[in-house]
Amino acid sequence: MAVRIKVTVAYDGSRFAGWQIQPNADTIQARIEEALALIAKVPVRVHGSGRTDAGVHSIGQVAHFDAPAELTMNPVNWLAALNTKLPATIRVLECDEVNPDFHARFSASSKTYTYELSTSPVLPPFQASRAWHLPRQLDPVTLEQALALFEGRHDFKAFSAVRGNEDEETDYRRTLSESSLRRLPEGYLLTFTGEGFLYKMVRLLTGAAVQTAQGYFRLDDLASLLDQEPELPRGKSPLCAPPDGLSLVEVRY
Amino acid sequence: MAVRIKVTVAYDGSRFAGWQIQPNADTIQARIEEALALIAKVPVRVHGSGRTDAGVHSIGQVAHFDAPAELTMNPVNWLAALNTKLPATIRVLECDEVNPDFHARFSASSKTYTYELSTSPVLPPFQASRAWHLPRQLDPVTLEQALALFEGRHDFKAFSAVRGNEDEETDYRRTLSESSLRRLPEGYLLTFTGEGFLYKMVRLLTGAAVQTAQGYFRLDDLASLLDQEPELPRGKSPLCAPPDGLSLVEVRY
Repeated sequence: MAVRIKVTVAYDGSRFAGWQIQPNADTIQARIEEALALIAKVPVRVHGSGRTDAGVHSIGQVAHFDAPAELTMNPVNWLAALNTKLPATIRVLECDEVNPDFHARFSASSKTYTYELSTSPVLPPFQASRAWHLPRQLDPVTLEQALALFEGRHDFKAFSAVRGNEDEETDYRRTLSESSLRRLPEGYLLTFTGEGFLYKMVRLLTGAAVQTAQGYFRLDDLASLLDQEPELPRGKSPLCAPPDGLSLVEVRY
Repeated sequence: MAVRIKVTVAYDGSRFAGWQIQPNADTIQARIEEALALIAKVPVRVHGSGRTDAGVHSIGQVAHFDAPAELTMNPVNWLAALNTKLPATIRVLECDEVNPDFHARFSASSKTYTYELSTSPVLPPFQASRAWHLPRQLDPVTLEQALALFEGRHDFKAFSAVRGNEDEETDYRRTLSESSLRRLPEGYLLTFTGEGFLYKMVRLLTGAAVQTAQGYFRLDDLASLLDQEPELPRGKSPLCAPPDGLSLVEVRY
């Protein structure tokens, strides 16, 4: 019988066209499936906890796959074998054998993302693809107030996007247990934790909070974007933050 | 009369074929000269404090150029204009007007380089091009003893390479005022300060120190590579460290 393996994966998203396999694109899922095929000598499908967009990073993406029964490799061997076949910009940090009913996406109970803002006058080269550069005025008190508005259970439709040719969501209510701010030496780290996130939700929340902290949008108007009446014309987040600052840091089960 | 401008430049060396202009190669000097030509509308030559090899980083490279007399731009304007024309992986950190007798290379009194070693079991993706990954045994006491041997004035010919079609050096004596070790959460940061360095000297010193700390080379043999008699056949450093971990951090005048 096949053995189910759970992997925790870090990647520099600036080097890839996102998590999910797509034709003619260099994606993280494709690289992992290529590595697995080289090791297992048969195609192996990888299931992620969710997709990350092009340019979005991870220090804690989780995925699972079923190792063919003929292979007698333990998790330590899998970790070493995968890292040998993967580029240095994708690293498997942990490998564990799990019950066959574990599913990286459906078993997840919550996720944490961070978003890094840099207020440095000049963005250092190594931060170029890792932070959103905001050298101009940004009021930290307003930024914190904006983030606090997002905490709790809300209809976040104003902070969602429709993905390609997919159906719209039927329920836009989500619960954020954390939407907070930490000061960095030259910027801020935003942290968002929730059971589930809508497509582009963290970037649309971050974009709106930053516009408010820069004085281009009012806190009252930001509050009115949450929990809008479904019958009325809906306002939308004024800005989607670039992918560079976003990292998936943890998936909990 | 032309105005001489001193610039301090940071770059992610993993994206470039080194500092110096070469045909058909993407180099930092070429990028800066292209940016200057766009701003000044005439070719402008840039003089660096020295070259850095492909893959070597900088947080403090210094260069100078002569701004055409017709341009009335102050250093603050130069900094903003250059950073607008340069890729995000090259950043001008400072711009200053200097005396016409200032020369980035010939006026330099000392330089500091750092070299980062990572002992993390798995090298994080964002460290991939910034550190030398050494997950196996490495004795920090021996590493520190090896580095201490290098301090002071020595003939470092065993720790030098000949660059392409250039003449050999006539004098291999150099003075290192610092060759030291600092512990990082998952590795070590080596620091080398001196008035001048031979070609590949820091990487050849680092490679030899690491081989010694890993038990592949003896401290006594390492010591015997310094100050060898010019008449006798010379030993050479057993290993050149990869460029990834090396950064030029400061040039002093």
